[in-house]
Amino acid sequence: MKNTFGTSVCVTLFGESHGAMIGAVLDGLAPGIPVDEALIAHQLELRRPAGRISTARQEQDPFEIVSGVFEGKTTGTPLTILIPNADTRSGDYLRGALRPGHADYTARVKYHGFEDYRGGGHFSGRVTAGLVAAGAVAIGALRAKGIRIGTHILRCAGIQDAPFTDAETQIDALNDRLFAVIDPAKGEQMREAIEAAAKAGDSVGGVLETMVTGLPAGVGEPWFDTMESQLAHALFSIPAVKGVEFGAGFALAEMRGSEANDAFALRDGKIVTRTNHNGGINGGITNGMPVLFRCAVKPTPSIALPQDSADAEGTREETLVLTGRHDPAIVHRARAVADSVTALALCDALALRYGTDWLNGETI
Amino acid sequence: MKNTFGTSVCVTLFGESHGAMIGAVLDGLAPGIPVDEALIAHQLELRRPAGRISTARQEQDPFEIVSGVFEGKTTGTPLTILIPNADTRSGDYLRGALRPGHADYTARVKYHGFEDYRGGGHFSGRVTAGLVAAGAVAIGALRAKGIRIGTHILRCAGIQDAPFTDAETQIDALNDRLFAVIDPAKGEQMREAIEAAAKAGDSVGGVLETMVTGLPAGVGEPWFDTMESQLAHALFSIPAVKGVEFGAGFALAEMRGSEANDAFALRDGKIVTRTNHNGGINGGITNGMPVLFRCAVKPTPSIALPQDSADAEGTREETLVLTGRHDPAIVHRARAVADSVTALALCDALALRYGTDWLNGETI
Amino acid sequence: MKNTFGTSVCVTLFGESHGAMIGAVLDGLAPGIPVDEALIAHQLELRRPAGRISTARQEQDPFEIVSGVFEGKTTGTPLTILIPNADTRSGDYLRGALRPGHADYTARVKYHGFEDYRGGGHFSGRVTAGLVAAGAVAIGALRAKGIRIGTHILRCAGIQDAPFTDAETQIDALNDRLFAVIDPAKGEQMREAIEAAAKAGDSVGGVLETMVTGLPAGVGEPWFDTMESQLAHALFSIPAVKGVEFGAGFALAEMRGSEANDAFALRDGKIVTRTNHNGGINGGITNGMPVLFRCAVKPTPSIALPQDSADAEGTREETLVLTGRHDPAIVHRARAVADSVTALALCDALALRYGTDWLNGETI
Amino acid sequence: MKNTFGTSVCVTLFGESHGAMIGAVLDGLAPGIPVDEALIAHQLELRRPAGRISTARQEQDPFEIVSGVFEGKTTGTPLTILIPNADTRSGDYLRGALRPGHADYTARVKYHGFEDYRGGGHFSGRVTAGLVAAGAVAIGALRAKGIRIGTHILRCAGIQDAPFTDAETQIDALNDRLFAVIDPAKGEQMREAIEAAAKAGDSVGGVLETMVTGLPAGVGEPWFDTMESQLAHALFSIPAVKGVEFGAGFALAEMRGSEANDAFALRDGKIVTRTNHNGGINGGITNGMPVLFRCAVKPTPSIALPQDSADAEGTREETLVLTGRHDPAIVHRARAVADSVTALALCDALALRYGTDWLNGETI
Repeated sequence: MKNTFGTSVCVTLFGESHGAMIGAVLDGLAPGIPVDEALIAHQLELRRPAGRISTARQEQDPFEIVSGVFEGKTTGTPLTILIPNADTRSGDYLRGALRPGHADYTARVKYHGFEDYRGGGHFSGRVTAGLVAAGAVAIGALRAKGIRIGTHILRCAGIQDAPFTDAETQIDALNDRLFAVIDPAKGEQMREAIEAAAKAGDSVGGVLETMVTGLPAGVGEPWFDTMESQLAHALFSIPAVKGVEFGAGFALAEMRGSEANDAFALRDGKIVTRTNHNGGINGGITNGMPVLFRCAVKPTPSIALPQDSADAEGTREETLVLTGRHDPAIVHRARAVADSVTALALCDALALRYGTDWLNGETI
Repeated sequence: MKNTFGTSVCVTLFGESHGAMIGAVLDGLAPGIPVDEALIAHQLELRRPAGRISTARQEQDPFEIVSGVFEGKTTGTPLTILIPNADTRSGDYLRGALRPGHADYTARVKYHGFEDYRGGGHFSGRVTAGLVAAGAVAIGALRAKGIRIGTHILRCAGIQDAPFTDAETQIDALNDRLFAVIDPAKGEQMREAIEAAAKAGDSVGGVLETMVTGLPAGVGEPWFDTMESQLAHALFSIPAVKGVEFGAGFALAEMRGSEANDAFALRDGKIVTRTNHNGGINGGITNGMPVLFRCAVKPTPSIALPQDSADAEGTREETLVLTGRHDPAIVHRARAVADSVTALALCDALALRYGTDWLNGETI
Repeated sequence: MKNTFGTSVCVTLFGESHGAMIGAVLDGLAPGIPVDEALIAHQLELRRPAGRISTARQEQDPFEIVSGVFEGKTTGTPLTILIPNADTRSGDYLRGALRPGHADYTARVKYHGFEDYRGGGHFSGRVTAGLVAAGAVAIGALRAKGIRIGTHILRCAGIQDAPFTDAETQIDALNDRLFAVIDPAKGEQMREAIEAAAKAGDSVGGVLETMVTGLPAGVGEPWFDTMESQLAHALFSIPAVKGVEFGAGFALAEMRGSEANDAFALRDGKIVTRTNHNGGINGGITNGMPVLFRCAVKPTPSIALPQDSADAEGTREETLVLTGRHDPAIVHRARAVADSVTALALCDALALRYGTDWLNGETI
Repeated sequence: MKNTFGTSVCVTLFGESHGAMIGAVLDGLAPGIPVDEALIAHQLELRRPAGRISTARQEQDPFEIVSGVFEGKTTGTPLTILIPNADTRSGDYLRGALRPGHADYTARVKYHGFEDYRGGGHFSGRVTAGLVAAGAVAIGALRAKGIRIGTHILRCAGIQDAPFTDAETQIDALNDRLFAVIDPAKGEQMREAIEAAAKAGDSVGGVLETMVTGLPAGVGEPWFDTMESQLAHALFSIPAVKGVEFGAGFALAEMRGSEANDAFALRDGKIVTRTNHNGGINGGITNGMPVLFRCAVKPTPSIALPQDSADAEGTREETLVLTGRHDPAIVHRARAVADSVTALALCDALALRYGTDWLNGETI
């Protein structure tokens, strides 16, 4: 499966940066789930360039749901969202030297030069708009079941955000913020650092941290479809993500077992862990604690500084100078994509575990 | 899919720690590939406890191939390897308090108490022996195509190994070493640190770094089956792995784009990158440079120190004191598992890309 | 997978009879394959009601390819075709008594009443237009590799068409005919019988016979993905198909082994079979002879005669009288759908067997 | 997927006719399901040659469950059954001329001569023993949920068995009979006809008819995973099956709509159909009526009569004369295989629909 993810709840992505439209088909979601177009629009807004620190190309994301919704609710059959492309300037994107850090070279090898190379084609970040729109439907379905997802920019350009402490409140606040930080003061510093990088013709990356609350214990299918495997599979489909860690992640490698093990305790007659170094997952199966993970997001590959490169045919080295407008950071936009793929992967895992009606179990 | 991984080349795992045997079925490998039983035995030895720093329980891993090999070569139909269990002492593993960091609690929730809990049952590290045996066949198939996989313990108990510099030579050396370090002096320090932890009744974790050379450019299936997604999916099935990063990984999040982008150059008429911060993968597709990634391995959850826990029924808190023998580290053993799942995931990706005969293309 | 079929080459269907549009996403096809819009239009025309014997509702099938084609050729990334709905009259389709033979009742049970019931919603034959459009691209790709698919109405309303004798010529002729019979005189009798049924307020079914020439030997993946399994899986997704048989099919059950076995012979240095009772498939793998199969297509369930039924809520029995216009037969239209799913299943099987570039191997 | 079938409940087959053993891994079944070894043995007996009309080679099928069962019940993790091979006489099976009707030629093309050709290797009917053993566990699980499967030899060598009339009673009786007919007198005639064919050095085929009672309405996943698609996919993995039809099947093609449509009625406040020409499936989804289908089973390809053939290398035509002992019919043995794949496909469909615990919902 290439552009389809999931087994019971599946999303299929299509479209290119400079084609007529991009979109997504979301299949397998339980029937009867309210589809909140305002939530879709909100998530798309979170993905769009945020003011001065992103590309001036103002993508408008009007979307149209053309199947799978009847009288405001999911039908249980494929839900298709189309998002027309607009304001594309092909002139900005002539086939020139290979852009380092992008898929230009690898797409050319894989697709033998037949790929639509304009603006990155199918490999443009633009395609994540469809993913975010479909993800918004999944996010809404999970919320109705008491499962909430929140992502903040844990680190950007060397500045560290405050940690998750009071998850429920923080998740709500994050989902309202265009620039997702827990501590707005840190967010301001990050924005300044991003602008500084932009002025230098450069770009920055960052680390996203995601928390999921309300997941039941017992979800995940070892050996090979562990909860970590399913989530990481989805997260590594986000173009700029180059690392994923759960719980304490790489820091666990530095701990001793007596610290890394999360001791069990009883709270209100329920088994909980005192710490959550394992990120809510033991043996690949959720344990009922919040699921916590982080994604490393690399800096935007498109930068204004000249770069060493080669022409697409591999005949000569040349210097690439990108014109046009580019985001000096995408970490703050990738956050909406991380939430989406997380929601989609969880809907799939839950439907596999508890059946195709579970996501709307109370209404059905 | 739970205990089956792969689409074209698939592995299925089965067995429990205290059952009659564990094993694996490897399906879809091209016919005519020589099956080197010595390589299987060697890989199983790399997974076994290494001398004084591992559990004294001496697992012997005699294996038997009962299908799929004819006249020393793969037939193209399912290859089944059985590994009998021996020297198991059920008395060591009565159902007691839940072991923190293990799957005891989550398996109980998921399987409702019907799971074979003895020694971790199906979630015991013992089951990785089947994975390593199957992986050895895949490793052999890849080597014949010039694709080599090497993993070293990059970090353990605070000690850092030397980096990959001369990949081909280092990979060969690593594959011969029971304790996989590039710099043996660092390995000795690691062993001492592991023993110190053991004496303290504790355990340590570490970071594994894997390099793959010889992969063709153009492998990986975005959006959802990127090379990173496929590898991470497989790597997160290794019980102790809690983080996976490609190339510079989380360090990329701290770089500027001008540093993170790997500039293209021509070498011998071929497009290469000057640096390899992206770990040989751009846009989810291999670019022909070595694929490089790291896994965070948490400390062995079984420790001698008393731990806070609860009984399996969740009725009362109790202190857990594990008796019996336990590894103070598993990172040096997990390395053989990392190599195996890497080989299996790559065989699958290559067979999907180039067809079911590709892995034996020269003979066929 | 519900609305996605295939592993390497995949098609995803979406849309409802009375929604804005229906469509399909075709993913995984090799890059560089010419996309012939005239062939798509032609295949859609074969699916449309043919003159006086089909519903007077004149469906126009203007289609738009919105992704996956660049400069007239496949890019290798998802190819999306949209087909707007027009001339739908919701008034004809109020939620009334359950229509026998349709999915009204089963969809209601499965989707709990949230399904879009208008005109059969997602289960309307209308949705096959997307399948036919995507199939046309697959048919074109196969033709370029010398693989040809032809289907005729072997039997309809008791009238039997002439058999395949000179496959290549007959397939070409069939693909040009709106009403797919080898013997036009038989076709005229079939049309008359269909009209007679229509006048009686009734409908008729038929049997489709499909031949595929040019397939290489060695395709199919026993045990579970035999060529028959893959084709039958696809064919049984056509709403009216209730039987599939390969080669002599059910007649094989009446033969003795000495007759049923297809004797081997050498022709031009190549192994062939003297007869083809096994339909070009032995042990689930193609043998290089033409693949031959038949589908039983049931009569159109929508008829003008009054029918015993019940209301959708299951509270009372009632007599259903359908108004509006309905096809007295769909077998002649289902033929285009059979060709499409056959082409899609074969493209998938071939890409799995020979790699993702195979379908365009000569150009790449 | 080649030798693995299923998405939520999966079976993996392995082994060759002349290897050490054959077997199956059954994964994904709910935990806590009693595993009845007597039922496994009984199903294996139904698959074994029945007295004088089958091959004198007396296969003993002692089996061993080596994983996935704890204290007599499923654990929810992979259940592995091994069946050693015995009494194999390799001398009977030297690589000679290609056996018409077998997979000798196609396996050779697909596996390039590396296949284990002895006795048909992995393509021997012997491998169905593993399928039957795994299927027996699935059959037991379904029975506990009130879902019963029964298959009879509807037709063999021109003799027709009595039809299903009183399903529940007939299914019980059939499951006790080695030679599965509803009317024992017809069975006796079939046996005589089989023996007559054997005396003539020939073989016969037949038609199996399967009824499933107790299935809930609402199971099946259109468009592509219709109930028919899932069942047919599984049934066409049985080596001799060349046709599958549901309900009235091919006879539907001869009916008018007014006859073919199954009128709805209310019985005890529940919606039922007056007839069952659609075999309990509308629009690819179960409707709560018994699911009914038939499989065409071709005559045993191994016959004593001389046959035209060619050598394996395709260098010359030669006459094949098979020595050794061969079944003059397999239809009566294939019945146990049909029951098994039906049970496996249904367990998978039900677990996908209602969740992984459903099959043991009452105990859990």
